Amino acid sequence: MRIALGQFNAVVGDLAGNAEKMRQIYARAVEADVDLLAFPELAICGYPPEDLLYKRHFLRDCSLALEKLAADCPDKTVIVGFAEGEVGKSYNSAAVIRGGKVHKVYRKGMLPNYGVFDERRYFNPGAKPLVINIEGLDVAVTICFDIWNIRWLRKFLAGDDRIRMILNISASPFHTGKIRAREKVINACANELNCAVAYCNLVGGQDELVFDGRSIFADSTGRLVAKAKAFDEDLLIADVISAADGTVLIEPVEPAARQPTDSVDEIYLALVLGTKDYARKNGFKKVLLGLSGGVDSSVTAAIAVVALGSENVVGISMPSEFNSPETISDAEKLAGNLGIEFHTIPIGPILGQFHKSLQTIEGWSDEGIAYENLQARIRGCILMSLSNRFGSLVLTTGNKSETAVGYSTLYGDTAGGFGIIKDVPKTTIYELAKHINKVGGRQIIPEDVITRPPSAELAPNQKDSDSLPDYDLLDKILKGYVEEDKSVTELVTEGLPEDVVHKVIRMVDRNEYKRRLSPPGIKITPKAFGKDRRLPITNRYSQNQDTV
Amino acid sequence: MRIALGQFNAVVGDLAGNAEKMRQIYARAVEADVDLLAFPELAICGYPPEDLLYKRHFLRDCSLALEKLAADCPDKTVIVGFAEGEVGKSYNSAAVIRGGKVHKVYRKGMLPNYGVFDERRYFNPGAKPLVINIEGLDVAVTICFDIWNIRWLRKFLAGDDRIRMILNISASPFHTGKIRAREKVINACANELNCAVAYCNLVGGQDELVFDGRSIFADSTGRLVAKAKAFDEDLLIADVISAADGTVLIEPVEPAARQPTDSVDEIYLALVLGTKDYARKNGFKKVLLGLSGGVDSSVTAAIAVVALGSENVVGISMPSEFNSPETISDAEKLAGNLGIEFHTIPIGPILGQFHKSLQTIEGWSDEGIAYENLQARIRGCILMSLSNRFGSLVLTTGNKSETAVGYSTLYGDTAGGFGIIKDVPKTTIYELAKHINKVGGRQIIPEDVITRPPSAELAPNQKDSDSLPDYDLLDKILKGYVEEDKSVTELVTEGLPEDVVHKVIRMVDRNEYKRRLSPPGIKITPKAFGKDRRLPITNRYSQNQDTV
Repeated sequence: MRIALGQFNAVVGDLAGNAEKMRQIYARAVEADVDLLAFPELAICGYPPEDLLYKRHFLRDCSLALEKLAADCPDKTVIVGFAEGEVGKSYNSAAVIRGGKVHKVYRKGMLPNYGVFDERRYFNPGAKPLVINIEGLDVAVTICFDIWNIRWLRKFLAGDDRIRMILNISASPFHTGKIRAREKVINACANELNCAVAYCNLVGGQDELVFDGRSIFADSTGRLVAKAKAFDEDLLIADVISAADGTVLIEPVEPAARQPTDSVDEIYLALVLGTKDYARKNGFKKVLLGLSGGVDSSVTAAIAVVALGSENVVGISMPSEFNSPETISDAEKLAGNLGIEFHTIPIGPILGQFHKSLQTIEGWSDEGIAYENLQARIRGCILMSLSNRFGSLVLTTGNKSETAVGYSTLYGDTAGGFGIIKDVPKTTIYELAKHINKVGGRQIIPEDVITRPPSAELAPNQKDSDSLPDYDLLDKILKGYVEEDKSVTELVTEGLPEDVVHKVIRMVDRNEYKRRLSPPGIKITPKAFGKDRRLPITNRYSQNQDTV
Repeated sequence: MRIALGQFNAVVGDLAGNAEKMRQIYARAVEADVDLLAFPELAICGYPPEDLLYKRHFLRDCSLALEKLAADCPDKTVIVGFAEGEVGKSYNSAAVIRGGKVHKVYRKGMLPNYGVFDERRYFNPGAKPLVINIEGLDVAVTICFDIWNIRWLRKFLAGDDRIRMILNISASPFHTGKIRAREKVINACANELNCAVAYCNLVGGQDELVFDGRSIFADSTGRLVAKAKAFDEDLLIADVISAADGTVLIEPVEPAARQPTDSVDEIYLALVLGTKDYARKNGFKKVLLGLSGGVDSSVTAAIAVVALGSENVVGISMPSEFNSPETISDAEKLAGNLGIEFHTIPIGPILGQFHKSLQTIEGWSDEGIAYENLQARIRGCILMSLSNRFGSLVLTTGNKSETAVGYSTLYGDTAGGFGIIKDVPKTTIYELAKHINKVGGRQIIPEDVITRPPSAELAPNQKDSDSLPDYDLLDKILKGYVEEDKSVTELVTEGLPEDVVHKVIRMVDRNEYKRRLSPPGIKITPKAFGKDRRLPITNRYSQNQDTV
């Protein structure tokens, strides 16, 4: 018996386009003579469709698209995820297509409603397992989260000990370390239920999320036998052999796909795909960004070039009197190394004119935070103006560390359409910079950019370290506070300095309004800012926590 | 038997402050010799606390605050909402305080997870009803959504026909028409269960939401006997009389509170409270806004003055060559009528300098959308600079109609901290303008501002009607598409012109990214932009809907 996992890049809402992709994959699967072809969770409409699911006509269109697809796939058994609407109820479902028709439907039983997931907002849980027989093998159809609670799953499938394989169609988003969690789940599923596992994941970028693919076959001993490509489409095919002793073995038909070398490589590939898909799926050919000669904008530009091509990236240097000759020349050097279009627009004259106009208001000054922020806002205006004129997407260059503590100018450097490194901690930015040079096989990002102490260059001799703790310490506190919801007491018990912990937490909490207004970026950590972490702006707990 | 409903303005996260308020209300209730005092849902921590509920120390602090409050309220029965954390599980609970201790706990059974509600993200549903006896009367304790599904509630309480009163503690946010829905629910609850109803609602603004109070007593015939103040704190006290035939009558101890005169008055009061609370709870004394002489900024300024006082509102006129002498003079006239600080900063010189600098890029032009948007962005920069310098909150002035179709400049007129009229359709803005003059008893907003055809004044002789359909038609389409999730077919069937419907829907869908980046504003309609309506930015359905 032969199974194929059709790991493809669906676009949310593109019902006709997604179906067309699946028809093409189906043709390849027929050629390879498979018995069963599986597509990811909600493959018909893409994941997550969010409030599109509140539109009755959307659910109806999903059904129509599914029926058309079924009619076009008459010769094999195909499993495909779709949003199923009934009167007053909706389900996250898997259709079993046979003989050109929707033969059976399985409804997801476990609906995740935490982190980035809102499935209880839309779906009702299903209550009945579905087991199909493929060439003599009993296969239980499951959807994503169904297999993450093995106790629930065992109970759900109880009473049917003929099941020899768990087929799982997923839309499991990436973060660093997620693949290990997934492999553990698949291994446990195989071991506990004594079944082989065929796991088909989605691939592609969708707003803040990147789905990393890496569909998996495991045999009934829990061994992971085959893994599809990471961050790319793939058709993973394997033969399934039932041994006499009940063991189910898996034999992949092609050599193993190359996998990311380490976690930095994983992040790099996630950022490249997330950037490419956000731009392309939203109709942008070109992107535009400010190049300061700092490491954040350098890494952003380098990733954009890999994602979109050097001909589609434009760098703008916007120096003021506070920018050093070194950073200005590094920006130009980087642009040269990347082979991108590069322009310089000094902001001094505009800043001077703003200052002259604002001086009519008593108390205005060309010193202090307002004047610093004004420089960032002028740069934002320039980039947005060029974006409007030439139709390019503006990339913001803020990293997770500064986004967390609000070390940025609202409507200044946060002005743009997409933030590639928004969820990347500053300490990881440096690793990415070195990785980019390694992957490129030459010094793309100048060495100085990586070694120079970071500065916003908005005032004379300014350094990040004037306002922020050392980034190693800052990132440790942020990981504990933002990603792990730890308290001051817990962080201090771990050995972090109490005064710094208090200061950082205060900054994080006070800047919720700023984050609420910053463009989407790619989630790469277990908890990103955005729909992954939903905190009130109006929130007095910050001032009092751990002190009640 | 005497009951008091302590409708008060809680602040999210301010555990100590909320408890202190409740202690003061308790003292008044003791003076009034009540037998039972009820506070709103999650009164200890405010509603909604969102991801604060993911912090274990937050849940622990809620429990500590509850125990302290209980110790301070030893002489009466008090019902208070709190977030209850157990190992791995959390509940939206009501504590029954008696004898200075938490005597019993009821856990909310129906958890809303639609619209602005995410309760399944945080809470597990409770499974057991709680009936307490107060002076011989059996009272079932319920929380908010529990009474909105009367079939569920009847089943949940089945088997206890001694219950004579339903006590419901709520945090039910305002939108126009909501009070009628609430009254219907309370009436149905009384009639179907043959019980009196005591309904205690929260009051106050919390980010996008305004809770309108209007706590209610209904007798067991379903008659609404007493209603607390709208959009203000109140302590509603009534005597409960059990008649021999099982009827439960209610007698309020004080004359009825004044209620809003009509739906425009309701919206007006919601905006005033929402503005006041957003500013005050976030520590802003002053606000700042651009005054164009148009109706949107005029209404925004007028509401800010009522909310915060004329001494705390600053208006800035930022004319260009495209602004007519009439609108410029109307802005000044409005500021005079409101008695607010007023400054004029012409943007011409700054615009000229930007143009000069941008001309170095081939293809830049002083005609077209980029040049128009630049003017709005310069204004945004000026306002944000003054905000940074003087610590004032910048109010944005976009209404719901233009927010919907993206008739605004990202990081231009959308730059600010809070949008008072963000959820108010343009047609309602005009009604509000007239209402403001009526309530003020004089012409606060100049007549011209109300009668002049609206214009963004970013190009010569520009009118909104050059780019947009008539606002009456636009608002009808938006209500159907945005608030009611209707399809093109449905809208056209209702008599709306197909070409305009298509055009408007395309504009709404294409501008999701812009809305994602606009500051919070006050929800006044059944579906506001923001967490009430969660659509993907990357979304191809818009282009194809109804055409599969």
